[in-house]
Amino acid sequence: MTDPFVVIGGDAAGLSAASKCLREDPERDVVVFEKGRWISYAHCGTPYFVKGEVDRLEDLLSLSPEEADERGIDLRRGHEVVAIDTDARTVTVESGSETFEQAYGDLLVATGARAVDDPIEGAALDGVFTLHGLDDAAAIRAFLTPPEEFDIADLGGGDALDASAIERYGELAPPETVAVVGAGYVGVEMAEAFDAWDLDVHVFQRSERPVPGFGDAVGDAVAEALRDADVTTHFGEEVVRLRGDDAVESVVCDTGSELDVDAALVGIGIRPNTELIEGTPIERGESGAIATDAYGRTSVEDVYAAGDVAEMPHAVTDAPTWDPLGLPANRAGRAIGATVGGDPTPVGAVADTAMVKAFDLECGRTGILDPDRAREAGFDPVSETITAGSRSGYYPGAAETTVTLVADRDSGRLLGGSIAGTDRAAVRIDTVATALGAELTVAELERQDLGYAPPFSPVWDPVLVAAKVLNGNL
Amino acid sequence: MTDPFVVIGGDAAGLSAASKCLREDPERDVVVFEKGRWISYAHCGTPYFVKGEVDRLEDLLSLSPEEADERGIDLRRGHEVVAIDTDARTVTVESGSETFEQAYGDLLVATGARAVDDPIEGAALDGVFTLHGLDDAAAIRAFLTPPEEFDIADLGGGDALDASAIERYGELAPPETVAVVGAGYVGVEMAEAFDAWDLDVHVFQRSERPVPGFGDAVGDAVAEALRDADVTTHFGEEVVRLRGDDAVESVVCDTGSELDVDAALVGIGIRPNTELIEGTPIERGESGAIATDAYGRTSVEDVYAAGDVAEMPHAVTDAPTWDPLGLPANRAGRAIGATVGGDPTPVGAVADTAMVKAFDLECGRTGILDPDRAREAGFDPVSETITAGSRSGYYPGAAETTVTLVADRDSGRLLGGSIAGTDRAAVRIDTVATALGAELTVAELERQDLGYAPPFSPVWDPVLVAAKVLNGNL
Repeated sequence: MTDPFVVIGGDAAGLSAASKCLREDPERDVVVFEKGRWISYAHCGTPYFVKGEVDRLEDLLSLSPEEADERGIDLRRGHEVVAIDTDARTVTVESGSETFEQAYGDLLVATGARAVDDPIEGAALDGVFTLHGLDDAAAIRAFLTPPEEFDIADLGGGDALDASAIERYGELAPPETVAVVGAGYVGVEMAEAFDAWDLDVHVFQRSERPVPGFGDAVGDAVAEALRDADVTTHFGEEVVRLRGDDAVESVVCDTGSELDVDAALVGIGIRPNTELIEGTPIERGESGAIATDAYGRTSVEDVYAAGDVAEMPHAVTDAPTWDPLGLPANRAGRAIGATVGGDPTPVGAVADTAMVKAFDLECGRTGILDPDRAREAGFDPVSETITAGSRSGYYPGAAETTVTLVADRDSGRLLGGSIAGTDRAAVRIDTVATALGAELTVAELERQDLGYAPPFSPVWDPVLVAAKVLNGNL
Repeated sequence: MTDPFVVIGGDAAGLSAASKCLREDPERDVVVFEKGRWISYAHCGTPYFVKGEVDRLEDLLSLSPEEADERGIDLRRGHEVVAIDTDARTVTVESGSETFEQAYGDLLVATGARAVDDPIEGAALDGVFTLHGLDDAAAIRAFLTPPEEFDIADLGGGDALDASAIERYGELAPPETVAVVGAGYVGVEMAEAFDAWDLDVHVFQRSERPVPGFGDAVGDAVAEALRDADVTTHFGEEVVRLRGDDAVESVVCDTGSELDVDAALVGIGIRPNTELIEGTPIERGESGAIATDAYGRTSVEDVYAAGDVAEMPHAVTDAPTWDPLGLPANRAGRAIGATVGGDPTPVGAVADTAMVKAFDLECGRTGILDPDRAREAGFDPVSETITAGSRSGYYPGAAETTVTLVADRDSGRLLGGSIAGTDRAAVRIDTVATALGAELTVAELERQDLGYAPPFSPVWDPVLVAAKVLNGNL
């Protein structure tokens, strides 16, 4: 009998793989080891839980342990895989005081990533948070809630919550001023969340614009949206130190400026959890994440990797890319589950397509926007940014929509794009992402037969306007 | 010196061509003959003018005669081309009592289409309208406005209006019950417009569902939206006669049923205005519209056709197709203008991509949905319809979104798709249209790296969910 399909990590990639494998091959033994108590939760929903727009933590769970059980998954929460032996084809598992070996036929490493805070001195002070997991989200909301209104049962996390830290924050007076350190999408979403609790919100970003991965035009639009919402922006200022005795009292920037705060949210990036493969022949790529092929296979036979810990091929360059986002994790997990279950399925490419909401502003990005990165990949990038209406100009509610497209001068091939606007802007990035994935030229994109109806889109959708202008300049 | 580029018809295709030609070749003489007084107006906006959401007719004009003049276009309104001599390379023009010959170097036939009402007896009665042009829209809004509030100056059409008919309707008591004959997109949009004036609205459609071109799933959703808005639907009933002495008093169906009404809007289709090419060697295609090649050229040298009077190649079948919609008219006109101006540019393909709003419901369609039509084109169509959330399920405002995708069983190639939902549904059809235009398979569409953010899209966008399900069944 075949040894089980062993999955390390019970989140998007891991449980997608486990579920899909069992649908393909219901007889297969599938074991998922999850070191924590939470499984399959929506990372991207946590800012909206902090904000209060999502009521309870349990709303963020996409699969309960009971549902996993119904699917036939042998789910072991509180079980940490501490070693992989690819020769013996076993993993070593610790649970409480118990340690045991588990043989595998196929293995998926889906250990995810964690928030980075170590370049900043004082990140361990009380009142300083990262946002990577439901316990983080619960602690922040506990801190924001006035003590007389706080009840841990209201958070909806049940006994999976790390109750002691959360209860402690629930007893404290809520903060009045918060520093958001890093204006990537977590920082921008958390600025909105803190603003909803009427805090005095300060956002720090070492570059000159927020959401640098979304390009200059979106960055300018997000900066305006933050300022319109009375968020104080400190761009071009890098926070180097959080100062305080036990709890944070101020943030200190590289410019020497200092601001008194009661809380800080550090959102300066995440890092893949690759410690487990150190000392194994499972190779990492240049990004530091685990290298994989088009089927999610690592350098070791029958060992796969997916999700925030793994690389995937890039839609434009085909190069291994670390793009730790929700859809690629789900898609790769599902494909690996199908492959392990007997139906070889490519994981597909990533284009780093992302969306972010900044108060009323909707933003999206896909592909390569950074000209240096485009040149490194062998392209000669040309970029155009246009502003066009989201609907026919005469129809009420039309909003200015800013689109940037980047293409290769010689071939005309579309390399990337971004969008910002308040009316149905974000989902329009999917048109660009699809054109990118299909390797269209800008001239081909310009000729796509998109929809037109006055309430939803002008005759020339903003994406088509951008394609027209860019194509005219190639 | 080259004879002028002569354009027959001053609407989307004609003026796009004239403008683009002059940008490419500012020295070229460009003459546009328009038989009416209106130019370049937004057909698709007229229901919203009737509704009152668009205030004035002039808001619907995308180019004024003055702007055309500034672009260097020799625009002759009130000039009707009554004959084309392709041997002599001239057109015969009538204006008032004057008739003259105009030589052309290049000729564009952009004579548009007109609303069909002739299969219905009594269509000439007072109170019976089609909606094809600003005068139609003005007359209907005049009729809907109480006489004591009516002032033709409020309509914003200036002296281009056909004032006598409009003034007459302005003096009548507004209708209380209206029959909308035909539930295509004009019928659906006009039902919403009449409802906004608090009329008792009855919609008749000979097939079992409204918007038959959008497929069954969208048809069901639109039917529900109409009924939710207290519109009375008469599906499977064909109106064969409008009865009355001078003004319409009732509609009579093939089933024998009769309904008393004060007004009727006939929206049963349009027909290309090809009379002008009868007796010329300019050929028509099977659809009855003018046959063209990939550059919009007709069967006669230096004679082009574009817009609602012309065929274009279909994105899926490559077959000549009559798809009288706004974007293809603009795109083909612009491409022909570039070609005539010295930069040969293909007009692109049409996928019959369309969007329609039915009260709060947003709908879209693209490509081939009808299985018979797919089979005629040599495909073996397989179709799936799914319903998925428009946002992450936990995020407020998530709405059920219904997606149908059709693919060829053997090749897996995407053939068509449709969508309906209340939250950002319509623009999502552009993702499908782009995948279609790029000739993706359903498996490839499933692997596109679309965006995900809880407020805008779930991890698996409804389009991806449909692709997953359809791909699993191929």
